[in-house]
Amino acid sequence: MALRATLRSKCGVSSLLSRLSSCSSHGRVCVSPVLVAQRRNNSTSPKLKVDFNQSTGVAVMHMQNPPVNSLSLGFLTEFCIAVEKLEMDKSCRGLILTSSQPKVFSAGLDIMDMYGKSPEHCAEFWRAVQEMWLKLYSSNMVTIAAINGSSPAGGCLMSLTCDYRIMADNPRYSIGLNETQLGIVAPFWFKDTMINTVGHRTTEMALELGLLYSSSDALKIGLVDQLVPEDQVLTTATKTVTKWLAIPDHARQITKSMMRKPTIDKLTSNREADIQFFVNFITKDSIQKSLGMYLEMLKKRKS
Amino acid sequence: MALRATLRSKCGVSSLLSRLSSCSSHGRVCVSPVLVAQRRNNSTSPKLKVDFNQSTGVAVMHMQNPPVNSLSLGFLTEFCIAVEKLEMDKSCRGLILTSSQPKVFSAGLDIMDMYGKSPEHCAEFWRAVQEMWLKLYSSNMVTIAAINGSSPAGGCLMSLTCDYRIMADNPRYSIGLNETQLGIVAPFWFKDTMINTVGHRTTEMALELGLLYSSSDALKIGLVDQLVPEDQVLTTATKTVTKWLAIPDHARQITKSMMRKPTIDKLTSNREADIQFFVNFITKDSIQKSLGMYLEMLKKRKS
Amino acid sequence: MALRATLRSKCGVSSLLSRLSSCSSHGRVCVSPVLVAQRRNNSTSPKLKVDFNQSTGVAVMHMQNPPVNSLSLGFLTEFCIAVEKLEMDKSCRGLILTSSQPKVFSAGLDIMDMYGKSPEHCAEFWRAVQEMWLKLYSSNMVTIAAINGSSPAGGCLMSLTCDYRIMADNPRYSIGLNETQLGIVAPFWFKDTMINTVGHRTTEMALELGLLYSSSDALKIGLVDQLVPEDQVLTTATKTVTKWLAIPDHARQITKSMMRKPTIDKLTSNREADIQFFVNFITKDSIQKSLGMYLEMLKKRKS
Repeated sequence: MALRATLRSKCGVSSLLSRLSSCSSHGRVCVSPVLVAQRRNNSTSPKLKVDFNQSTGVAVMHMQNPPVNSLSLGFLTEFCIAVEKLEMDKSCRGLILTSSQPKVFSAGLDIMDMYGKSPEHCAEFWRAVQEMWLKLYSSNMVTIAAINGSSPAGGCLMSLTCDYRIMADNPRYSIGLNETQLGIVAPFWFKDTMINTVGHRTTEMALELGLLYSSSDALKIGLVDQLVPEDQVLTTATKTVTKWLAIPDHARQITKSMMRKPTIDKLTSNREADIQFFVNFITKDSIQKSLGMYLEMLKKRKS
Repeated sequence: MALRATLRSKCGVSSLLSRLSSCSSHGRVCVSPVLVAQRRNNSTSPKLKVDFNQSTGVAVMHMQNPPVNSLSLGFLTEFCIAVEKLEMDKSCRGLILTSSQPKVFSAGLDIMDMYGKSPEHCAEFWRAVQEMWLKLYSSNMVTIAAINGSSPAGGCLMSLTCDYRIMADNPRYSIGLNETQLGIVAPFWFKDTMINTVGHRTTEMALELGLLYSSSDALKIGLVDQLVPEDQVLTTATKTVTKWLAIPDHARQITKSMMRKPTIDKLTSNREADIQFFVNFITKDSIQKSLGMYLEMLKKRKS
Repeated sequence: MALRATLRSKCGVSSLLSRLSSCSSHGRVCVSPVLVAQRRNNSTSPKLKVDFNQSTGVAVMHMQNPPVNSLSLGFLTEFCIAVEKLEMDKSCRGLILTSSQPKVFSAGLDIMDMYGKSPEHCAEFWRAVQEMWLKLYSSNMVTIAAINGSSPAGGCLMSLTCDYRIMADNPRYSIGLNETQLGIVAPFWFKDTMINTVGHRTTEMALELGLLYSSSDALKIGLVDQLVPEDQVLTTATKTVTKWLAIPDHARQITKSMMRKPTIDKLTSNREADIQFFVNFITKDSIQKSLGMYLEMLKKRKS
């Protein structure tokens, strides 16, 4: 019923390492939680830049949490407040999510919020992850993901909550819920969101194998809706949101709610149990030890 | 939980008008409820022509409710009686639905049954819409939609209830649940029927945007099963029903029921609430005012 | 709620006969329950050959129940014991299912276990069919179907339970849940398994018409995942299982369970009712008479 980071098998760790090695030429595309940890203590600069255009009613939210827009507790808190603020502003009808970081949309959940932390901290972190999903998946705004870089795990989830996904047509960028490759399991509401997007069978295989799809494969299975050259991702998103806003808001919002409510209700009615499950799991000695080994290896790779 | 015609935003009305203008060259393809109202008072001719071939066990039902086969209370009542009659006739095993009107299969629900009417009338109308859906979606007969013209909204729903959909290969004909474009929301059972046909994600986008698909796009997403030249729609339907009737009736009927029962049960167990919801909504002053404005504009366009 | 063999209409029997005639040149591809019955009394040789490779952790299970790997009570009992044994063996992580018989993977349920048998026997048989499905669909092992021949009805079901399906690229081989063509209805858990694989609409049409798909059509609708030349089916399966085993077992198993548990729970919580339904149905005079006629016709065809 929740994220179950096993991270215990040699297999998981070695396949992860090979994955990291294989993309070392990409530089900052990979998840680098150690760097994230360093940054966190040094920086108080905002992790989001929100450009709201009053005349169009569309806000563009640029994620700028270097190096890879990890979804840390700090980032998620700031993110949820920003979305809430726009949601309350009746003049804001559309929201475009994009990244200010090169080559990555978001690398997903920040491991530093799961390692060596108190149960209370882990619970607070998980609640923030849930909150991000709930806010986006149930948003009354038209939400467009302008995916201008790789988008694994939590980054893929964030994209999946949007009404429409436009991805940079770059074979080096990938997207997918790849938790299983790392010995981790995507929780039920990640799974439900993916089933709603690409269907049961594609989700089953994607989640069992932790598949990351190239942009063109992602288009083929319906994980994203459109590919455009990288420099046109944001302009295409802007044109798309305009098209969606031509539909009467009220009718669109009720329709969206009708489509998504059962999936949302499933989490809201199991929220505390889902948190408890995550905390029990992530604070296990075996899991913490695996996380530690994983971070140690990342450090060695860096030096 | 029911049709929620908002029809209140300027956006909805203007986009509708532009839609009507843009297809003025098509003549009678568009919804023209004013004309329907005029006809209703003058005509007592049957709105359906049923040709039942005893030797094949197949009935062809030609809808002839000029100009656009609007699903009025009168039409729906006659339609349900005709379907019921065929259903009770053990010698009738197949039903082909088609249109006698040029360029249109059915333009959907008749707005005149929602405007300026008593709550009792609105309730009776909505019950008839439900009844049409229930009768067709649960029919023991093999049902084939021979879609020889445009089929928006309620016309699309009627097609979706059939076992198989053959559409005229004409780029000027379109099909889809486009309620949202008019500020209206397709009720949950419209949505469920579409999900059962084209899946969750395609339905979500189609309903949020109120998309009307060209015949070739409809084929691509699976909204129809086959395209043939317009003059072969009915002959192809006849050949298709023969193929389906080669399957033992009893096994086919039980299989059909197994596939559709959960969706049907959802409406039957919420039928009165669904009616009440519709009546409360449609009789609101704001909605009635919007409907009036809409009809006024149609009148001006006509003169 | 269960298999409902009607087998009563002339249509069903004649279409079956024509199907059998049309493939007489294929020799043993067709279901031949009479032969199966003869064999059963003469043979005590094992119906399965299991090759377990300790170094890879992968078992290959060759079905050898001549002539067409009918799923008889005897075969199913042996099969379930073998699967259970591998499941309990922690060193066995992958399972490949394939056939030793030429041209057929499995022809499905053995009619001889439904004809002229006591209610107790029928109940025991049905429980074994359920058990086969439950064991395979919930297996912790990576399961690959190496479909090296035709795979109708129960043979298709067996394939559908696997994690991945590789089929011989041979236009003479077909696969599908074709029960309806024989006047029989696939029970709800057959249906659910197919919906999970190819979606609601494709399943609806496939089951209503009892469609058997050529290997290339099966690939197109997603009923199988990959086609390879016949002599490469097993080697491809071996490569595929290796790829799947690179994923940490624990994470993959939890993910698989999360995807399949609702479907499995539906049968486990209705198991006795499903058996009772089957027994009541299959022991009806009319059904037994139809089965008898069917077997009589098969005998005539043989002589």
